[in-house]
Amino acid sequence: MGLTTYYTPTRVTFGPGAEDQVAERLKAEGAEKVLVHYGSARIERSGFLAGILSRLDEAGIAHVELSGVVPNPRLSLVRKGIEVCRREGVDFILAIGGGSVIDSSKAIGYGAAYEGDVWDFYSRKAVPQKTVPVGCILTMAAAGSEMSDSSVITNDESGEKRGCNSYVCRLRFALMDPTLTCTLPPYQTGCAVVDIMMHTIERYFTGGQSMHFTDQMAYALLRSVMEAGLKALKTPDDYQARATIMWASSLSHNGLMAVGNDTRGDWACHQIEHELSGMFDVAHGAGLAVVFPAWLKYNISDASERIAALGYNVFGVKRTRSEKEDARTTIAAVEKFFRRMGMPTRLTKLLGVRITDQTIDTLADNCTFHGQRTVGLMNPLDGEAIKLIYRLAR
Amino acid sequence: MGLTTYYTPTRVTFGPGAEDQVAERLKAEGAEKVLVHYGSARIERSGFLAGILSRLDEAGIAHVELSGVVPNPRLSLVRKGIEVCRREGVDFILAIGGGSVIDSSKAIGYGAAYEGDVWDFYSRKAVPQKTVPVGCILTMAAAGSEMSDSSVITNDESGEKRGCNSYVCRLRFALMDPTLTCTLPPYQTGCAVVDIMMHTIERYFTGGQSMHFTDQMAYALLRSVMEAGLKALKTPDDYQARATIMWASSLSHNGLMAVGNDTRGDWACHQIEHELSGMFDVAHGAGLAVVFPAWLKYNISDASERIAALGYNVFGVKRTRSEKEDARTTIAAVEKFFRRMGMPTRLTKLLGVRITDQTIDTLADNCTFHGQRTVGLMNPLDGEAIKLIYRLAR
Repeated sequence: MGLTTYYTPTRVTFGPGAEDQVAERLKAEGAEKVLVHYGSARIERSGFLAGILSRLDEAGIAHVELSGVVPNPRLSLVRKGIEVCRREGVDFILAIGGGSVIDSSKAIGYGAAYEGDVWDFYSRKAVPQKTVPVGCILTMAAAGSEMSDSSVITNDESGEKRGCNSYVCRLRFALMDPTLTCTLPPYQTGCAVVDIMMHTIERYFTGGQSMHFTDQMAYALLRSVMEAGLKALKTPDDYQARATIMWASSLSHNGLMAVGNDTRGDWACHQIEHELSGMFDVAHGAGLAVVFPAWLKYNISDASERIAALGYNVFGVKRTRSEKEDARTTIAAVEKFFRRMGMPTRLTKLLGVRITDQTIDTLADNCTFHGQRTVGLMNPLDGEAIKLIYRLAR
Repeated sequence: MGLTTYYTPTRVTFGPGAEDQVAERLKAEGAEKVLVHYGSARIERSGFLAGILSRLDEAGIAHVELSGVVPNPRLSLVRKGIEVCRREGVDFILAIGGGSVIDSSKAIGYGAAYEGDVWDFYSRKAVPQKTVPVGCILTMAAAGSEMSDSSVITNDESGEKRGCNSYVCRLRFALMDPTLTCTLPPYQTGCAVVDIMMHTIERYFTGGQSMHFTDQMAYALLRSVMEAGLKALKTPDDYQARATIMWASSLSHNGLMAVGNDTRGDWACHQIEHELSGMFDVAHGAGLAVVFPAWLKYNISDASERIAALGYNVFGVKRTRSEKEDARTTIAAVEKFFRRMGMPTRLTKLLGVRITDQTIDTLADNCTFHGQRTVGLMNPLDGEAIKLIYRLAR
């Protein structure tokens, strides 16, 4: 078995009203000039932002705002944020939002503490050594960025969507109030649940052996978030459901679900999906709902045991004499659940149009960095394999 | 629902050979003069200690050793450690061992960074503000001290066993190699499994509502560690079993099992047990195996729903029409499992002698700080209730 590093130094405050601690936490971090970074008009409209800013004012914490983050957050706004940080002498970044805002904040933090171009970290020309510290008020739970070491940015000049993983960017604090997510629309709730599930599932399909205990924790997380997802669609303000989704978003992506496993997971589905949302600007969760079933179909012969185990422990699949048959039943159950969550499971449904073989070639070529890499660890995929998966997903 | 703070900044390295990173981690912490603190002759005899010390020497890290930690670690040795730290200018404490060694190290860390008497923190006259930083190589998994905010010390002048909880003492790193625990004798393995279970169960019996997702994670942890415990008794060097026990020890006591719950748990059983191990120097896990069933019996009317749910989800209890009946079945299943793990479930068995009513009065009086406090949050217990529980346990 391999060595795991598990390091989650983010101070979490979880529960209704967690955001009320914002000034106290910023003070504890010694923040004097804060960049308040957020996305949606929802934050402004509801008076929520004004409430937070007045807390900062009362505490004598200077601040400057930068809004406009969109899903699949853009490099251009990151660059703008870095400029603001330098010009204003920002010493702390407060993200108010979900994964896009936090990922954007992490990128701004890296860039503001770096002489060169921030895209270096995403194109793997450089490795982050330091950052302007970041904290968040989570208003949308899905990406798990509040506790993860990951940031994914879309380069709006080239259309590339690239991730950067580093312990450097672990948030200093995360204020997590599940009641703030009760107004999330059903489609976004569906996307969130799929994204959360996939952060655990990518780690479950480890490139090697897994720790049995970690498998059991993964099964418990998956069952819980699936049940909560269906409940949240039916009763959007169900506190237990929203709390489960929010906390599962963190635990799914903070590294817990890979402890003791031989690797930190497969991650092919994420790479294959990133090309879709990079090119078509679709929601990441919806893209994953399309890619994962196709990936499972591609891998059914090599991974039937692991797929079937997922079925037995999470999707209520009954054991028959054929493991491969059970794996097939599991794949059908996965698709059925995604559809119950209002998610597409085919590319044509996701995009509203059937994509051409030529587009698939381009997607696969981008995904392999033009033939320079394979994706996935459990079963490394080259360009031809990736094309096949896009076709299975079509 | 209440607010939870979840803060686990300890950098964990988990897997075979984790201890090989000791010099690298100490360097990363800037340690220049290390107190190497350990307990048993086992560490010296096996050549393990020599191997670690030579790694420190190779890396040019100065060190001084302090051995002699015993279960229910003593204040007198803590005082000695503080003296050593001051005299030698120690700037980092490396604990090699299990909960006793780590708890002792935390106490030394507090005391060495404090002008007054270290016992102030345990008698609640003072609250720790800083510490000499601590890291560990875990060689015994049970107490979960490697990730917890807790330290429990026995005052060998007064016989009192008292705990101090503070975020200040979270370890900087924990090197966790499950293979180091394969030689643990069966009785200690039994004590470990009970201790681990109880850290989750104390939090499960919250003083208020619980988060359903946290309940599910608790059930998964309990089922996993019970299965692993039985496997480790049968096959002491089963890697998966030892890995599960080790990682469960951390997750059970780092706060994860109380996230979203109204309180951080009940903890009456721990307080009632501390008096036993303080007075009779019995193993903490064995003491808990005696106290918990009695505590359950005392609470069966008030908590039958929660007890029965534990039965359904962890102990394989079949649901009947009577929840109270199912709670009773659960208590029997708990006792049966503890006995399978080689644990006593009665005081007389634990101590080898039937204790008198007078002794019970003394234990209960100590436990309430001579009538100055109740213990437990789910159902606060006064001296009379505690006496009854000791009698039920007899």
